[in-house]
Amino acid sequence: MSRFPFPILTAEEAASLIDDGATVGFSGFTPAGAAKIVPTAMAARATALHAAGKPWRIGVITGASTGPSLDGALASADAIAWRTPYQSNDTLRKSINAGRTVYFDMHLSQVQPWLRAGFLGKVDWAVIEVCDIGADGSVVLTTSVGVANTLARIAGKVILELNSKQPAFLRGLHDIYEPADPPSRREIPLLGARGRIGDTVVRIDPARIAGVVLNNAEDEVRGFDETTEVTRAIGANVARFLAAERKAGRLPDGLPFQSGVGNIANAVIEAMAQNEDIPAFDLYSEVIQDGVISLIERGRITFASGTSLTVTPSVIQRVYANWDAFRDKLVLRPQEISNSPEMVRRLGIVAINTALELDIGGNVNSTHVLGRQMMNGIGGSGDFTRNAHLSIFTCPSVQKGGAISTIVPFVSHLDHSEHSVQVIATEHGVADLRGKDPRGRADAIIENCVDPQYKDILRAYVKSCGETHSYCHPDKSFIFHQAFQRHKDMRKAAELL
Amino acid sequence: MSRFPFPILTAEEAASLIDDGATVGFSGFTPAGAAKIVPTAMAARATALHAAGKPWRIGVITGASTGPSLDGALASADAIAWRTPYQSNDTLRKSINAGRTVYFDMHLSQVQPWLRAGFLGKVDWAVIEVCDIGADGSVVLTTSVGVANTLARIAGKVILELNSKQPAFLRGLHDIYEPADPPSRREIPLLGARGRIGDTVVRIDPARIAGVVLNNAEDEVRGFDETTEVTRAIGANVARFLAAERKAGRLPDGLPFQSGVGNIANAVIEAMAQNEDIPAFDLYSEVIQDGVISLIERGRITFASGTSLTVTPSVIQRVYANWDAFRDKLVLRPQEISNSPEMVRRLGIVAINTALELDIGGNVNSTHVLGRQMMNGIGGSGDFTRNAHLSIFTCPSVQKGGAISTIVPFVSHLDHSEHSVQVIATEHGVADLRGKDPRGRADAIIENCVDPQYKDILRAYVKSCGETHSYCHPDKSFIFHQAFQRHKDMRKAAELL
Repeated sequence: MSRFPFPILTAEEAASLIDDGATVGFSGFTPAGAAKIVPTAMAARATALHAAGKPWRIGVITGASTGPSLDGALASADAIAWRTPYQSNDTLRKSINAGRTVYFDMHLSQVQPWLRAGFLGKVDWAVIEVCDIGADGSVVLTTSVGVANTLARIAGKVILELNSKQPAFLRGLHDIYEPADPPSRREIPLLGARGRIGDTVVRIDPARIAGVVLNNAEDEVRGFDETTEVTRAIGANVARFLAAERKAGRLPDGLPFQSGVGNIANAVIEAMAQNEDIPAFDLYSEVIQDGVISLIERGRITFASGTSLTVTPSVIQRVYANWDAFRDKLVLRPQEISNSPEMVRRLGIVAINTALELDIGGNVNSTHVLGRQMMNGIGGSGDFTRNAHLSIFTCPSVQKGGAISTIVPFVSHLDHSEHSVQVIATEHGVADLRGKDPRGRADAIIENCVDPQYKDILRAYVKSCGETHSYCHPDKSFIFHQAFQRHKDMRKAAELL
Repeated sequence: MSRFPFPILTAEEAASLIDDGATVGFSGFTPAGAAKIVPTAMAARATALHAAGKPWRIGVITGASTGPSLDGALASADAIAWRTPYQSNDTLRKSINAGRTVYFDMHLSQVQPWLRAGFLGKVDWAVIEVCDIGADGSVVLTTSVGVANTLARIAGKVILELNSKQPAFLRGLHDIYEPADPPSRREIPLLGARGRIGDTVVRIDPARIAGVVLNNAEDEVRGFDETTEVTRAIGANVARFLAAERKAGRLPDGLPFQSGVGNIANAVIEAMAQNEDIPAFDLYSEVIQDGVISLIERGRITFASGTSLTVTPSVIQRVYANWDAFRDKLVLRPQEISNSPEMVRRLGIVAINTALELDIGGNVNSTHVLGRQMMNGIGGSGDFTRNAHLSIFTCPSVQKGGAISTIVPFVSHLDHSEHSVQVIATEHGVADLRGKDPRGRADAIIENCVDPQYKDILRAYVKSCGETHSYCHPDKSFIFHQAFQRHKDMRKAAELL
């Protein structure tokens, strides 16, 4: 019945092939295009084996986060021994923070080079979601590329999840280009967000395809919260800043934008779309979200290049129903291309990402709550911020009704240093850090971005540091964190000065 | 008498052209190729004006550090209001740390794009050392390129220091390539350390050349200390690690190396040269030092690409006397090319840099003593470490006879995050951080790299953090720094646990 010469397996049969201790690479960048029923079957197998007193835990490599059927199911079954490069599942996060799962947090652009270089060990299995399979082993991916093309090529054996919910007309959405490795690597021949340099399919050696599992599950993409007064104010501040940069001749038209994931990112991109002084623009980013689809429909985003089409089920139906209008405005690339430092600097990308915490020196924490508990991982933010034409970080000035100041004396974990952060925007305003020393940066951040109830405390902290170039104070750098630990309120930091 | 149609000026005449408040770009990357007599004359002018109660302070942009005649003289005259991107002069450092000079510390690869984008403001004057001048305004640079080609093109007016100590046969040493800016930038068409893609001269609009100042001063390059037992042990550990990586198939032959500046860097590169399991290699680096010249002579370095030829006066004479043997083994590029993230990742560079301080998470401080006082700046280390095939950081495990542990619980300033650091080597051994979570990294660093007298203290610190993913402890992260502040001895940190 199948047009391809590969055995059809049940998910359970596929899961039974994989041994305890194996390293398994799964397709998926966000829940988009993630393998679904095979990992869920693996989790069931792990649970059964564990109940019988037998071990079954694996190493898991993906493009980025995935959905409940993958990270969620496997983590619930205590089946993930080691994980890279990014995750966002509650159960898995608990396992990581408890030290039960070893989590290696890395820049997303480096996963594919590291896989090929052998730095992440041998990949025994790849489980890849596809929407079409040729007899020659060529496959069409679904709603993401991530690292799937590399996993499919280098893994010992490959299992395909053929998803009938994803239309075969996705052929052509993907631009699969895998560079040679040094010392034989050449230029990536891509000159703009709209270019195409690769293949529409991933070509897998048929001898390495262990079987095909049939699936019809939707991507497990959840929507984000509505914008709020705070996120709208952040968005408006960023848009106003960008319009002024353009007017000053420091932001040429034609530079593509990168936007992080989440509520604030959506609010920023919406504010840019509403600002009449910002012309319609291309996106060269990682994740294409619901908001981007709307802006394409409104003609404010002219093209979107990403590595995943992470849109909610109702929106993906709208896209597929109007495929003729979208097919020449979207492309999905491997993440080593979507996040490539070579591309980011060449294209002059304006990068807009969200900080979990930042400090008066301009350093950003993207990953660790109070410096201790891993949230999701650094993801692609570093790939973009480091090499961007302009790197902007956004955050609300406070959290938890004011008990947490997002802006602290010294970040409790540092993911993006002052050198990767040019502009900071909160709902209160914008700090432009270019050309400033630590004193100038602290002034600009405190006066423009910090919530009024924290300004005096931070000014006093700066003063307490005395004559210094940068504001590290071994006795006081963490007074905000100490106050929160002791009183659940950073405002009490004033007492620790 | 001159073959060029530009006026000959004295250094004093040239200095008198420049107004208080001007932004001046000088050639120079390290003391190599730095402008010399014009900045010294500017300093004299500043001193005279200050004595007369008049202001004269300028903004100073260079490639990197310079010599005593530039940063030293101007800082001694209190004539530097603002400085970027790197410095290493004692007097200037004091002025920066006292808040008298605003110092903006930035990645060296970004200086040229930022100059063109206008992020560093307008450059009023460029003062460029050259060894040959054509009637059409084309000039041959001397022992460095740095950002001189961009300064010469974009500055309002240009003063040339024609240095008769530098032979005109340097024409051909330089490969001057300046990319277009986004959104019109294309690929950098360079595929290896040995390639040439640009011009041998810098072409300056003759109308913008204000004059030529004659000079015959040598580059003010000082030698480094001899290797010691500790630096030789670090070098041997790195070389042994690299040989093992090669044997394991994770280090293909043909990858170029980058090496930082200083004693340890010299010891490492010498140890690599002495290791028979490491074949002769190309260097794609910033600074070409004395040690590299010796290794070219011994056939262990096959080619050196850099942005400066920073060798001591006796060695430069040896190079010039044997120019036929060196001319096809050396090239100097603009620093946006020598340090380009596009090139670093494409070539698969193995980056070896020195840490001032590092922590058990694998984070590196390259710039700040005890988190407060600026040493020199981040320089190009970030350009290489972030995008390298493999990024190695070296340091002695202790300083000041053991009173300072270079490895601390938490860095007091963070320049290179865990994500940019794959391998750490001290005289005691090597920690390979790839694929490890913070627990695994702390174990590897403490057991392999830390000095024995600090191991128990760091193990106890880790334990004190309790169940956590990363080892930030708001009450205890800086106990090493507190102990040093109070007792001048980090070993006393045990009492603060």
